[in-house]
Amino acid sequence: MRHQEAGCFNDLPAHVWPRNAKREEDGSVSIAGVKLTDIAAEYGTPVMVVDEEDFRSRCRDMAQAYLEPKNVHYASKAFLTTRIARWVNEEGLSLDVASENELLIALAADFPAERITVHGNNKSESFLRTCVTRGVGHVVVDSHQELDTLNRIAGEEGVAQDVFIRVKPGVEAHTHEFIATSHEDQKFGLSLVSGSAFRAVQTAHNAENLKLTGLHCHVGSQVFDAEGFKLAASRVLGLYAKIYRELGLQLDYLDLGGGYGIAYTVDEQPLDVQAVAKDLLRAVEDAAGELGITPPTVIVEPGRAIAGPAAVTVYSVGTVKDVHVTDDATRRYIAVDGGMSDNIRTALYGAEYDARVVNRLTEGVPHATRLVGSHCESGDILINNALWPDDIAPGDLISLAATGAYCYSMASNYNCFGRPAVVSVKEGTVTPMVRRETVEDILARESL
Amino acid sequence: MRHQEAGCFNDLPAHVWPRNAKREEDGSVSIAGVKLTDIAAEYGTPVMVVDEEDFRSRCRDMAQAYLEPKNVHYASKAFLTTRIARWVNEEGLSLDVASENELLIALAADFPAERITVHGNNKSESFLRTCVTRGVGHVVVDSHQELDTLNRIAGEEGVAQDVFIRVKPGVEAHTHEFIATSHEDQKFGLSLVSGSAFRAVQTAHNAENLKLTGLHCHVGSQVFDAEGFKLAASRVLGLYAKIYRELGLQLDYLDLGGGYGIAYTVDEQPLDVQAVAKDLLRAVEDAAGELGITPPTVIVEPGRAIAGPAAVTVYSVGTVKDVHVTDDATRRYIAVDGGMSDNIRTALYGAEYDARVVNRLTEGVPHATRLVGSHCESGDILINNALWPDDIAPGDLISLAATGAYCYSMASNYNCFGRPAVVSVKEGTVTPMVRRETVEDILARESL
Repeated sequence: MRHQEAGCFNDLPAHVWPRNAKREEDGSVSIAGVKLTDIAAEYGTPVMVVDEEDFRSRCRDMAQAYLEPKNVHYASKAFLTTRIARWVNEEGLSLDVASENELLIALAADFPAERITVHGNNKSESFLRTCVTRGVGHVVVDSHQELDTLNRIAGEEGVAQDVFIRVKPGVEAHTHEFIATSHEDQKFGLSLVSGSAFRAVQTAHNAENLKLTGLHCHVGSQVFDAEGFKLAASRVLGLYAKIYRELGLQLDYLDLGGGYGIAYTVDEQPLDVQAVAKDLLRAVEDAAGELGITPPTVIVEPGRAIAGPAAVTVYSVGTVKDVHVTDDATRRYIAVDGGMSDNIRTALYGAEYDARVVNRLTEGVPHATRLVGSHCESGDILINNALWPDDIAPGDLISLAATGAYCYSMASNYNCFGRPAVVSVKEGTVTPMVRRETVEDILARESL
Repeated sequence: MRHQEAGCFNDLPAHVWPRNAKREEDGSVSIAGVKLTDIAAEYGTPVMVVDEEDFRSRCRDMAQAYLEPKNVHYASKAFLTTRIARWVNEEGLSLDVASENELLIALAADFPAERITVHGNNKSESFLRTCVTRGVGHVVVDSHQELDTLNRIAGEEGVAQDVFIRVKPGVEAHTHEFIATSHEDQKFGLSLVSGSAFRAVQTAHNAENLKLTGLHCHVGSQVFDAEGFKLAASRVLGLYAKIYRELGLQLDYLDLGGGYGIAYTVDEQPLDVQAVAKDLLRAVEDAAGELGITPPTVIVEPGRAIAGPAAVTVYSVGTVKDVHVTDDATRRYIAVDGGMSDNIRTALYGAEYDARVVNRLTEGVPHATRLVGSHCESGDILINNALWPDDIAPGDLISLAATGAYCYSMASNYNCFGRPAVVSVKEGTVTPMVRRETVEDILARESL
């Protein structure tokens, strides 16, 4: 259980909250100069508030760390709307998409197709054809079957499609250690060790309508140092050397995927982007030098590390209930007007969050508390264990920080809840991004 | 790992599949006389197919077991559309809702308000007012705070609102055993043991605008015998006796909640509804007799047990990939065109499913297989371990059975996937229920 002193509970840990979050003199919390109380009053709760400058500044940090904006591919699965795609484009980053609809949304936002890289373990014929005809930069091929299909489609459309091959590097993130394994029992990629990846490279190299320009690998999620990336890079670079030796082919890009860790709680420290990048780029250069190949351009795919800390979710407190957990201890259950429909991460991954009262300063003494949602399910928990001031009451506003990634993108209509409104804030101004979903929206697709 | 002989894989276990599912002579599978291949061709995949007569027959089975249709309250959270609400109404059942939108959808389907019971740990003022003004049958009150709010609102609206109190019976389902505990560390209900439930009864009894007519308790999910229900009933009936002795009040109803187990896999056996009901009703009668009170009418709240087995989800096979898991073993990864966006239960609860190829007979030899979705996440798994025939190929149709409950209702737009189409089938006819969600639907709520 995380102990939070009553006074500390009014702090907003800078490494967790959006860069422009601030506790105002009246005790309320603002983001980019806009009070969350005002947003709640105008847009209702739950509402997601995205700090535009925070999002953009993290794009720029990544761009600087990886030498050029276009080497940083924002992973849209974390959180994608057309406005998000526009911000990413304006910052000069590239974009990863992993479904036909993600691609179509990016294109609807006029994202340049040549800066889009396409992922997916099971891309349909229709999806691949859209990739080819719309001219996406790279398709990351995930199977031998896809190589054949994509080569055929590219041929039919008269295009030479740029591709990467997704390789299983045999490196797995195990909590905070990276394990080199020879086998990886998961759906993505082609095995280095078994030779499957090299066979795919040969196929791609020989395919009439494909142009192989790089390899892709991914080590995991919420990674906090360079070790896993370096280990994966060194293994995959071995394949670059073999490709150069045996096929005479020099690949331009090495896509090391995502997984850049962020701080969800005050105890965590986000990955140091500049230091990791420096360490990683030097390691790639050194390894390439030892192998006698030209170092490929390193590409990274942060999603969470850009979108995650940029947004908070604001809820209203409803029911407050003390529950006897032993004969002489109670736990306070604070229920808010959202829950597992707008944030499944606690239930799905055991995720932890930092939350604060944002409409006023709190003054109570620490009390064992659980933050729950309004769904008809006992597992509908947002924060499992906290020590929070005991003066939190119905009508207070509570915000969870770092909800920008994998919350809205995984939101459901469970219990027929409409999904929250989303707004962005910048320099004192609020701009609606997605309007709140209504029961009419939910009924609209029904055939009556 | 479940071993399925190649021949057996063509069977459709009757206790798992919809009652009108059938393997046709051409090797394909039909439901209610409609081939799933035809539905897939017309509506695309993934598509959810609901066997109307299966759903209705399970309503009737429950109604018969619990003496009158209105004693059975279908739990809408499992799966609710206006058509589902109409079926439930036509079968004479009552309806549980757990959110304002579930209530509004039921009312939009002309479900009689007096047969609606309202749940929720955190009902908003607006929700409670809608309950009162629309005249719902019962509000199941979950906190002292709610008693006060509801009494005030009922007074403002000039209504005497019928209520149940939700009680923590101190009975917990632990896998297949029921444990009597004195404390229950969860958000729902008021404790029997601490006296909190009795205090709420007194408050409700004395409240000017509330009429207390019953108590509610819930023991868990996927329960397979009467023991847990009987244990909970005997504990709660103790409170009925105390209420009778101390307040002279005879409560009409005992709502024992849901949790009726269904078979997801061939190895499981569904709860025997008739036998459990008989056992449970007799136990309630006996316990009431011993306590010297008139036995209350037993109410139950099945959701999964009615909707779950009535529907299947049909997917198309895309990528088939063999992955080396040890030096001499491979696992086949079969990827379909849906996944955790339309069925989060495997990832969220470790759920298991029965799946079959439905477009033809299979003839291959058993091979270790994992069924995965198309999402950009390695945890996007539908069936973790199976031994399936090795002749399943791209273009085949695979259906998961028993997906009627908590699949569509918890579906998301992860990776911007549109949610599947839903159709119902009856006597050879297909009727669209919910149309497939498009990228235009997803973009429609954006503020551009």
